[in-house]
Amino acid sequence: MTQFMDVHHGMKGITADQLMEAHKADLAIEKEEGVHFERAWADPQSGIVYCLSEAPSAEAVQRIHERSGHPTDEVHPVPLSI
Amino acid sequence: MTQFMDVHHGMKGITADQLMEAHKADLAIEKEEGVHFERAWADPQSGIVYCLSEAPSAEAVQRIHERSGHPTDEVHPVPLSI
Repeated sequence: MTQFMDVHHGMKGITADQLMEAHKADLAIEKEEGVHFERAWADPQSGIVYCLSEAPSAEAVQRIHERSGHPTDEVHPVPLSI
Repeated sequence: MTQFMDVHHGMKGITADQLMEAHKADLAIEKEEGVHFERAWADPQSGIVYCLSEAPSAEAVQRIHERSGHPTDEVHPVPLSI
């Protein structure tokens, strides 16, 4: 298992409730791919959302995000962290 | 105080020791701008590093990173988080 940081664009105006809804949608199905979404951070002004997960592969992260309605192809393994 | 996520590029091949050194260099002077760097994640393969901080402004984050030798102009406030 590796940690991954993924990035979403185009979420301008996202609210705290919408961020939580999106996160819950991921949590609801993440186990099917062996993924766990740990944290998420959003900038409503620029529309960028960062998600931190632990997963077997970047593709697994992508599949969960796609199925829950917020696809991204920007997923980076972050094996080093502080 | 707001949380910020900043992104560095061009750090291909960064090691755990180098990430820690860079983080310590930020910590050593962060108080001068009222910033605190909380977490950092690195992908040695793509050379991307993400830093999470709490700070009074994006400019304060930039000034610390610049003075400690790893400038970036990609700093986003992330007022929403999970």
